[in-house]
Amino acid sequence: MTHRVAVLTGGGDAPGLNAVIRGVVRTAQYRYQAEVYGFMDGFKGLIENRYIKLDRSNTSGILHRGGTILGTSNRDNPFRFPAGRDAQGQLLFEDVSDRAIENLQQLGIQVLIVIGGDGSLHIAHEFALKGIKVIGVPKTIDNDLEGTDQTFGFDTAINTVMEAFDRLHTTAESHHRIMVVEVMGRYAGWIALHAGIAGGADVILIPEIPYDISCIIQKIKQRCEQGKYFSLIAVAEGAMEKEGSMVVAAHIEDSTDPIRLGGVGQVVAAKLSKATGLESRVTVLGHLQRGGSPTAFDRILTTRLGVKAMIQAVEGPWDQMTALRGNEIIVIPLAEAISKTKNVNPHGEIVQAARAIGLCMGDEF
Amino acid sequence: MTHRVAVLTGGGDAPGLNAVIRGVVRTAQYRYQAEVYGFMDGFKGLIENRYIKLDRSNTSGILHRGGTILGTSNRDNPFRFPAGRDAQGQLLFEDVSDRAIENLQQLGIQVLIVIGGDGSLHIAHEFALKGIKVIGVPKTIDNDLEGTDQTFGFDTAINTVMEAFDRLHTTAESHHRIMVVEVMGRYAGWIALHAGIAGGADVILIPEIPYDISCIIQKIKQRCEQGKYFSLIAVAEGAMEKEGSMVVAAHIEDSTDPIRLGGVGQVVAAKLSKATGLESRVTVLGHLQRGGSPTAFDRILTTRLGVKAMIQAVEGPWDQMTALRGNEIIVIPLAEAISKTKNVNPHGEIVQAARAIGLCMGDEF
Amino acid sequence: MTHRVAVLTGGGDAPGLNAVIRGVVRTAQYRYQAEVYGFMDGFKGLIENRYIKLDRSNTSGILHRGGTILGTSNRDNPFRFPAGRDAQGQLLFEDVSDRAIENLQQLGIQVLIVIGGDGSLHIAHEFALKGIKVIGVPKTIDNDLEGTDQTFGFDTAINTVMEAFDRLHTTAESHHRIMVVEVMGRYAGWIALHAGIAGGADVILIPEIPYDISCIIQKIKQRCEQGKYFSLIAVAEGAMEKEGSMVVAAHIEDSTDPIRLGGVGQVVAAKLSKATGLESRVTVLGHLQRGGSPTAFDRILTTRLGVKAMIQAVEGPWDQMTALRGNEIIVIPLAEAISKTKNVNPHGEIVQAARAIGLCMGDEF
Amino acid sequence: MTHRVAVLTGGGDAPGLNAVIRGVVRTAQYRYQAEVYGFMDGFKGLIENRYIKLDRSNTSGILHRGGTILGTSNRDNPFRFPAGRDAQGQLLFEDVSDRAIENLQQLGIQVLIVIGGDGSLHIAHEFALKGIKVIGVPKTIDNDLEGTDQTFGFDTAINTVMEAFDRLHTTAESHHRIMVVEVMGRYAGWIALHAGIAGGADVILIPEIPYDISCIIQKIKQRCEQGKYFSLIAVAEGAMEKEGSMVVAAHIEDSTDPIRLGGVGQVVAAKLSKATGLESRVTVLGHLQRGGSPTAFDRILTTRLGVKAMIQAVEGPWDQMTALRGNEIIVIPLAEAISKTKNVNPHGEIVQAARAIGLCMGDEF
Repeated sequence: MTHRVAVLTGGGDAPGLNAVIRGVVRTAQYRYQAEVYGFMDGFKGLIENRYIKLDRSNTSGILHRGGTILGTSNRDNPFRFPAGRDAQGQLLFEDVSDRAIENLQQLGIQVLIVIGGDGSLHIAHEFALKGIKVIGVPKTIDNDLEGTDQTFGFDTAINTVMEAFDRLHTTAESHHRIMVVEVMGRYAGWIALHAGIAGGADVILIPEIPYDISCIIQKIKQRCEQGKYFSLIAVAEGAMEKEGSMVVAAHIEDSTDPIRLGGVGQVVAAKLSKATGLESRVTVLGHLQRGGSPTAFDRILTTRLGVKAMIQAVEGPWDQMTALRGNEIIVIPLAEAISKTKNVNPHGEIVQAARAIGLCMGDEF
Repeated sequence: MTHRVAVLTGGGDAPGLNAVIRGVVRTAQYRYQAEVYGFMDGFKGLIENRYIKLDRSNTSGILHRGGTILGTSNRDNPFRFPAGRDAQGQLLFEDVSDRAIENLQQLGIQVLIVIGGDGSLHIAHEFALKGIKVIGVPKTIDNDLEGTDQTFGFDTAINTVMEAFDRLHTTAESHHRIMVVEVMGRYAGWIALHAGIAGGADVILIPEIPYDISCIIQKIKQRCEQGKYFSLIAVAEGAMEKEGSMVVAAHIEDSTDPIRLGGVGQVVAAKLSKATGLESRVTVLGHLQRGGSPTAFDRILTTRLGVKAMIQAVEGPWDQMTALRGNEIIVIPLAEAISKTKNVNPHGEIVQAARAIGLCMGDEF
Repeated sequence: MTHRVAVLTGGGDAPGLNAVIRGVVRTAQYRYQAEVYGFMDGFKGLIENRYIKLDRSNTSGILHRGGTILGTSNRDNPFRFPAGRDAQGQLLFEDVSDRAIENLQQLGIQVLIVIGGDGSLHIAHEFALKGIKVIGVPKTIDNDLEGTDQTFGFDTAINTVMEAFDRLHTTAESHHRIMVVEVMGRYAGWIALHAGIAGGADVILIPEIPYDISCIIQKIKQRCEQGKYFSLIAVAEGAMEKEGSMVVAAHIEDSTDPIRLGGVGQVVAAKLSKATGLESRVTVLGHLQRGGSPTAFDRILTTRLGVKAMIQAVEGPWDQMTALRGNEIIVIPLAEAISKTKNVNPHGEIVQAARAIGLCMGDEF
Repeated sequence: MTHRVAVLTGGGDAPGLNAVIRGVVRTAQYRYQAEVYGFMDGFKGLIENRYIKLDRSNTSGILHRGGTILGTSNRDNPFRFPAGRDAQGQLLFEDVSDRAIENLQQLGIQVLIVIGGDGSLHIAHEFALKGIKVIGVPKTIDNDLEGTDQTFGFDTAINTVMEAFDRLHTTAESHHRIMVVEVMGRYAGWIALHAGIAGGADVILIPEIPYDISCIIQKIKQRCEQGKYFSLIAVAEGAMEKEGSMVVAAHIEDSTDPIRLGGVGQVVAAKLSKATGLESRVTVLGHLQRGGSPTAFDRILTTRLGVKAMIQAVEGPWDQMTALRGNEIIVIPLAEAISKTKNVNPHGEIVQAARAIGLCMGDEF
């Protein structure tokens, strides 16, 4: 019997999604003569039964392209289960998972490959509990998943941020300015930490290490004494000020505004300008970090993940997630993988290395 | 007698400043065995007599570097002349030009080369009126100087913005979003126009063509009807809404805030989201546009400008500015060049070409 | 009546071909509601009647892509006219132009837009003489066409070569090596000259200025005396040695070998190594120079050319070629444009500027 | 007592050398207030006692720069020990290690940090046997060292090669050509394998898997049948043809020629053209692969290696080499690390993944 699998991409964009899809489709063709369907716009397309048949021809030339040819869906996905009810037992939203399962069955799809973040993998696992064979491929540019050494898109994102620092470096130096770059990372500081080290930042602020503005001011003043009248600062959007024993997340309040710009970065810049007399400028890279052609690392990782997902889809066991462990691609149970976020260890080797070269992590000087 | 010239860089940063300096120094060495001094931090260094002697060794390896090894000064330069007085004739600020001239004379400098924007070239011309031999090299990434076909740094800036559009394109498409990119251009829309065309923008808003939000909304809705559920919008920071017969510059009010972000871009994004139901995201590239390694075009142009400036410095006449005219580097009188800004012609060929390919310029649909 | 035009791309590849096609198609759609057909693989497809109908959908997302979605044909195109006969009057090859014209007529195509180099434009003009309405769009990355200020693809090519120099610069310096980069330019030295200046080359060898190896050796020795134990050399593939009063083109003999590598570059490197005792390395960029995503300049230029070609196709007159003249896009008669190649002027301003900064052009020291 | 260490860089160039030096110097300053000397041009400078004192000022702004500010030496280093003698016991070359040791002692240097490849680390270990405290930092862009998960420079190199493939892809497709890219890797195929997967190659030839030209021909013909009239081929310079049971290394014979170009790549291209009738083009990237600004991965890895080397230099034990193991930086004994090269496993997961997506590894079809 011909194998028939489906694939969908859910959640926020990450460079490499297309390369995973390509890996799945080519492995299906060359190794199993299997058929692959792609549902459009994440779980939305699964519910609405919108799909295309994927083959070599419509997945040709996508290895190097950012985005996803399948489209993706927002976090406020209409799909939810079990059905939601209010306190009086009234139906708030319907359980549409049965509709999804029916669509899969009518198409004769044996396995569903879900490429997505924490939320999408949760849903995938729920499907598994309902008897659907699923394979998950983890995706988040934030790199904050416990089950895998590194997530795809992260390497591309830190190179994008590093290039921004490279551009800002000379102009900061010529103008004697403080350049603040606010980067993604609401809960984990991986992008700020890695891109900050790579970009030659002088200060890195991450959610895992609440900052003390006076330490940063001291650092900047020290640099001025050394004849360096400029500073580069990497700030994760989730960085927080330590105030006495209390941690204040002042910037969170307006986080519902979809076009809000420069929360914590702007706060930090304003304080530093006032305290040091140096001009400061803020750059908010925003969705630039989710776009662009994947780096070599991300293209190779995603190709391997796509291959592994397809092999696993055919050979089982299912309800598993592909993962990078050392130099190997392995699988681990979805139930084990989801919901375990991985934070920067404030006492780990990379943070220690940053401190060793004189980088200020915001908490000491 | 050995020729001795000085060079300084004034005003905002632009990729290629170092290549001009290198062109001046190498021409001095190879063609004239002349000496070159560099004043630090623009006119500030001239007044304070801070300088370095430039030679091949300390200008080596700078061709490809952004920024300026001489530093530059802000627009709120302490240097002003003639002396400022209030209504009662009290001295507000001193005329420090005599001090600058004295510094030049004590160092035996025969000619001063000023690489700078409109403000710096004005000051250069004032020095010429006081008898100093000056040569100007025009600089603005905004490309809005009348006297020269194209200013250096502009080509680099539009490539930087174009790359941002390239990155945003796929993620906009995957997520069905409106991506607004706010770029430099307070008075002239050259960057938005050129980078918008190069980046495949669907809408371009520039100061020269006040926009009507309803035209933009129609354009986005048309795209949705064509199955394009995303749009890319280039907005010059000086773009303005046309309202009835009145032009409203709502975003200008907070323009004094040095770390202000996303003025007009944010306004446009909010209105479009509300009207179309599509999510929107704003990216403010800010000083990224002033940084980075110059493109080939900018490196060649700046090398030629540096050579020409040095030749002119030695051979005269002075009180002139170098300029690109067609494929030639010429000189024109400074008096003629300054203060003539060049705006985008709303009826010119490039705007017509943009309209011909269906690009919305904000004023019609 | 609906306008119906066809477009084809001929000859060697150049970044920006797709952007011209996109400009034509979008102008057809938005301005004229016209239909556009694309013949595949250059004139070959025209003869064999292989074509696709172009619309917004199949020309979407191609602005930034190198290559041509229509394919192109080699210079040893089977299509030739008039028919070729040998000395005895025997038919060597048939005149297939009538077949081509018949294909155009059967499809109801009123105008043929030919995007191509000198050879393709010649053929286009021959068609015009046979009564077909044609518009030419000039294409050569070598930039050696007289009729237009700059050809598209050239700006991208020199940036590609410049980046290669940037990469080689530091490794040359660390290893005390002579790095020779052989670039395209069989008859004209534009790429070597521009990319050499932009990449900080110490020596530039072009076909227009036969070189004397002893001058280059002196230059390299001078650099060693200055403590610069490395040199970067840009060599056009058509560069030739001056020997006494005779010009020797030793490297040409094997130029028929399609995979020949490093002709003149290798010769120069070997001689310099022997004479200076420094190691040398040769890089042959080859077709890298024809590939890649177009720069902003090339994307804008090609968009404008595509728009102009479509306007001209509808409004006439025909038998014309689009061209860049200053900041304008104009048309000139094809008959006037073809066969006039533009060489580097050995006494022109750019060569003078190169010499002024101490660059060795191979003929003097 | 103030710690005083020295650092040198030996062997071939690799992006990230400067970042290691910077990591060493900054850790010395911030963590230990230690002094760092840098010997010029590898072991050559150690013997000749040529050095500079390194501090923050002369290691500023080098994080993103390729090459090494200390220079490096060739493999035919004059430095050898023990002294070489011929069969008659005549001294061929002197043991200059005592001179080197004397130089270290006179400068009061306690520890020597050697950043280098296999050869340099061997020499470092020899010094350790003579009582000098040494720390090694492994360097090879070929990634073929057993002791460490990945060597620095490799990630940059594969991105450089991948970009070349990206450029060639569209032009290959437009012209129906076979594009052969010959990359570094005389004994190990890591660069060809990784860059080939990342660049979308159709065929990858590496030293570890002798190729059968008829398999490659079949692959290319299969692609033509699928309507893909072009192919991209990655060839390691050490790739070898399998002929019957014998492995022929035909291309090695001229490998002593320092400016030899396109050995095996040219051989493969010629055979494929002949067999398939498709034109082929060869690109030899050469030293481009050793140059350029390091990627984020390489900048972070090298910073961490520099920090670790300096900590180890002060705290011991010595005669060790820093290494990446999983996400950690560790040290291992030099004696254990050197001479163990790491080859691509022909049956490993990455090669399997390549085969799964239909990539031809040259040995089967």
